Amino acid sequence: MLHIDLTPVTRVVGLMLCGLAAVMLVPAAVDATFANPDWIAFAESAAVTGFIGGAMVLATSGGRAFELNLRQAFLLTVACWLGVTAFAALPFLGLGLDYTDAFFEAISGITTTGSTVIAGLDTLPPGILLWRSLLQWVGGLGIVVMAIVILPFLRVGGMQLFQTESSERSEKVVPSAFDLSAWIVAIYVVLTALCALLYGLGEMTPFDAVNHAMATLSTGGYSTHDTSFAYFRQPFTQWTGTVFMLAGALPFVVYIRFVKGQHGAFWRDPQVRSLLRFLGLTVFAMAAWLWATRDIAFLDALRLTAFNITSVVTTTGFASDDYTTWGPLAVGAFLVFTFVGGCTGSTSGAIKIYRHQVLWIVVRSQLLRLVTPHRVVLLRYGGRRLPDDVPASVLAFVAVFMATVGLFTVALAGMGLDLETAFSASATAITNVGPGLGPIVGPAGNFASLPDPAKWILSVAMLLGRLEIFSLLVLLDPQFWRP
Amino acid sequence: MLHIDLTPVTRVVGLMLCGLAAVMLVPAAVDATFANPDWIAFAESAAVTGFIGGAMVLATSGGRAFELNLRQAFLLTVACWLGVTAFAALPFLGLGLDYTDAFFEAISGITTTGSTVIAGLDTLPPGILLWRSLLQWVGGLGIVVMAIVILPFLRVGGMQLFQTESSERSEKVVPSAFDLSAWIVAIYVVLTALCALLYGLGEMTPFDAVNHAMATLSTGGYSTHDTSFAYFRQPFTQWTGTVFMLAGALPFVVYIRFVKGQHGAFWRDPQVRSLLRFLGLTVFAMAAWLWATRDIAFLDALRLTAFNITSVVTTTGFASDDYTTWGPLAVGAFLVFTFVGGCTGSTSGAIKIYRHQVLWIVVRSQLLRLVTPHRVVLLRYGGRRLPDDVPASVLAFVAVFMATVGLFTVALAGMGLDLETAFSASATAITNVGPGLGPIVGPAGNFASLPDPAKWILSVAMLLGRLEIFSLLVLLDPQFWRP
Repeated sequence: MLHIDLTPVTRVVGLMLCGLAAVMLVPAAVDATFANPDWIAFAESAAVTGFIGGAMVLATSGGRAFELNLRQAFLLTVACWLGVTAFAALPFLGLGLDYTDAFFEAISGITTTGSTVIAGLDTLPPGILLWRSLLQWVGGLGIVVMAIVILPFLRVGGMQLFQTESSERSEKVVPSAFDLSAWIVAIYVVLTALCALLYGLGEMTPFDAVNHAMATLSTGGYSTHDTSFAYFRQPFTQWTGTVFMLAGALPFVVYIRFVKGQHGAFWRDPQVRSLLRFLGLTVFAMAAWLWATRDIAFLDALRLTAFNITSVVTTTGFASDDYTTWGPLAVGAFLVFTFVGGCTGSTSGAIKIYRHQVLWIVVRSQLLRLVTPHRVVLLRYGGRRLPDDVPASVLAFVAVFMATVGLFTVALAGMGLDLETAFSASATAITNVGPGLGPIVGPAGNFASLPDPAKWILSVAMLLGRLEIFSLLVLLDPQFWRP
Repeated sequence: MLHIDLTPVTRVVGLMLCGLAAVMLVPAAVDATFANPDWIAFAESAAVTGFIGGAMVLATSGGRAFELNLRQAFLLTVACWLGVTAFAALPFLGLGLDYTDAFFEAISGITTTGSTVIAGLDTLPPGILLWRSLLQWVGGLGIVVMAIVILPFLRVGGMQLFQTESSERSEKVVPSAFDLSAWIVAIYVVLTALCALLYGLGEMTPFDAVNHAMATLSTGGYSTHDTSFAYFRQPFTQWTGTVFMLAGALPFVVYIRFVKGQHGAFWRDPQVRSLLRFLGLTVFAMAAWLWATRDIAFLDALRLTAFNITSVVTTTGFASDDYTTWGPLAVGAFLVFTFVGGCTGSTSGAIKIYRHQVLWIVVRSQLLRLVTPHRVVLLRYGGRRLPDDVPASVLAFVAVFMATVGLFTVALAGMGLDLETAFSASATAITNVGPGLGPIVGPAGNFASLPDPAKWILSVAMLLGRLEIFSLLVLLDPQFWRP
């Protein structure tokens, strides 16, 4: 007998599916406009999704107040992402993909990872290309709302650090979760529109501009071209991409503060400062190295490194060049960059800046304690005292994160993948970056040729990464299911 | 002006060097016995080392009581390992190696890593082979004494957990540090003699038996043959090696308890239990996999996996077969095994069992807290309460450990090493295992062809790993040098 009331969970997932069905009508309309028969696949998918979603809502409509306990909140989080992905995969079946590939493509989209199993993007009908971009855009929005409104209260991986900050109680900028979500949506829409406009002013067609803007702001990385961002050669386009990938990786609460009049909000935020410093340092260093070691102008080198490092660090995964051909130093550096991640409360994945900051604070304090064991070291973050339970949460997160990468590497290697492919595929999936290393999963490769079990393993890895691992792991704990 | 009195540090390092000079006379005597002119190199090295060591002792002889403060203890620890290595490298110069190679070989020996830059071992004079084994044997003894007598009081990487246990105050088994060290030496000598005897009863010559026994108990892995342990084909020899590598990786305080009459000491120790369970599980699983996927009898498979897994997990680094030819699953698994390590207070390196246990305890408690945030979770280890500062120490250690592996990987890649070589060389050096992956640093390879800067970087990595990282890192903290 299950001790958790699934009614609210079922209801919310049902509502989500109804929303998803509505979103499916957008590519259906586009395909229909271009007289493309693929609109039928979208219409059918929307019908199935809407029917099942509607049934779930109707079956659970009892007029009870909407309130979740902690376990329901965890269950709901996982159920929403899984449920939506399962149905979001349907339109890909119309393309002739089997369900494994369709699910992989859908979860890679929704988690804003950006690894793809589809080759020949340039010749695909517009509806399916738009669908891939829409999945990333919606997934990106979903993760920002989740990271700001829900996760801090679930205390996942040290995110309790952002409880007061994200709920903004202390500063009373935005009072409720609903208002907060509305602000996030508004900012997300405006940034995407701005990005699409700038892309369109450059060399992109309006269709490419809209699709790439959605994949940029969501730090997703799906492109409408097999060659990804390398398809576009204008420096203006690439710099625009660099700036808006970064915009997607900044904490959205800081945007809200900025709009509300705190004009120093960005520079005052410790995560933003660290991210900018890190990017500035690595981009300049690698540009200088590229300029010194090969025949390339410094500004071109700067553009190349700025775009590709920002892309990997923000976990977008666009590539304007195959950086794995830059030599072992670059390959090693990009592998390390894969783990960095953007700010929390943004669309980006991986370990994230504040966790690196907390790690640094803890390691520093440990070094101090070694020299002066009797001194009391107060841990401070961003001018405030670090709550007592944050270091253990963060450190446990990082340990489980690295262990998961190792475990999935061995599992993938067990399916016959060579070690570089296995390790980088595992890392790039869990960090939601997208491209790995080597001919198969590298920036110039395609995940299609992987065996089916490997695709399912990577799907789990992407979801684990997106849900900060612990939100999913907690469901596997028998304790969770006990009364 | 330096605020730390270096007198006791200088004195102890001087004493160590005098001891080292005495040890150098052993291979000198052996070479002289075989009428081998190489005895001159050892005699000269002994003269230089003894002279400088003696001068350091004389210059600091003031009759003051021998007492160290915390900073002096850290400084002494690092100075001893560095000082001894610098002079232990001298005899290798007589072989025609340059000082980079000589230092690499010496530090790889003393840290019981076992990576070598010397090819053609089978044709070398006996003195130099004995010197390599002696370095490992002395280094292994040094680390056990350090890990049991010194490190717990320096509180490095969570080792304060073993303060009461290792000083044995609670049970009054062994009263003082001096007695404790004597017990450790006695047990180490007896185990080595036993191992040499069993090796000699098998196919090994007496010379090979003594050398391999020293490299086995110290979990070092230097061999007298280029083909390492694959030179010996008798199952008896390989099983003996397996058992004594494991013996070197068990906590030496448990041996003391056992000898003092606590016959259940081994099974009661939480580290020993976990290590045995882990080895049992992985050895059987991989043997079953080998047996199922290739043409090999189960008992042979068991012997192969038992030897090679035990070798990597205990950070010995002997190879009875090139396991990198077993396929990607084995390669991935061995890479993960590299990080495991034996028990603390043994001769083995890497992360070590108790840290994995503490990580597991912390992660479990974090999962529990997510579901029931208001419940107070008491962390217990081995039946006792886990001291409050241990989790942060352990977690900081693991974070710095992994970051160091990443950093050194990028540095090595920057010298033109391919990523597999760079990553596995970095990992195998920091964990003090010995062999990495790929043709250069793999079990069948040789570190000689690496560029000189890479050898220095790996030397630093080996020392970092051996000193539990923080003992060395603390010296780089400006705070350390302030009054």
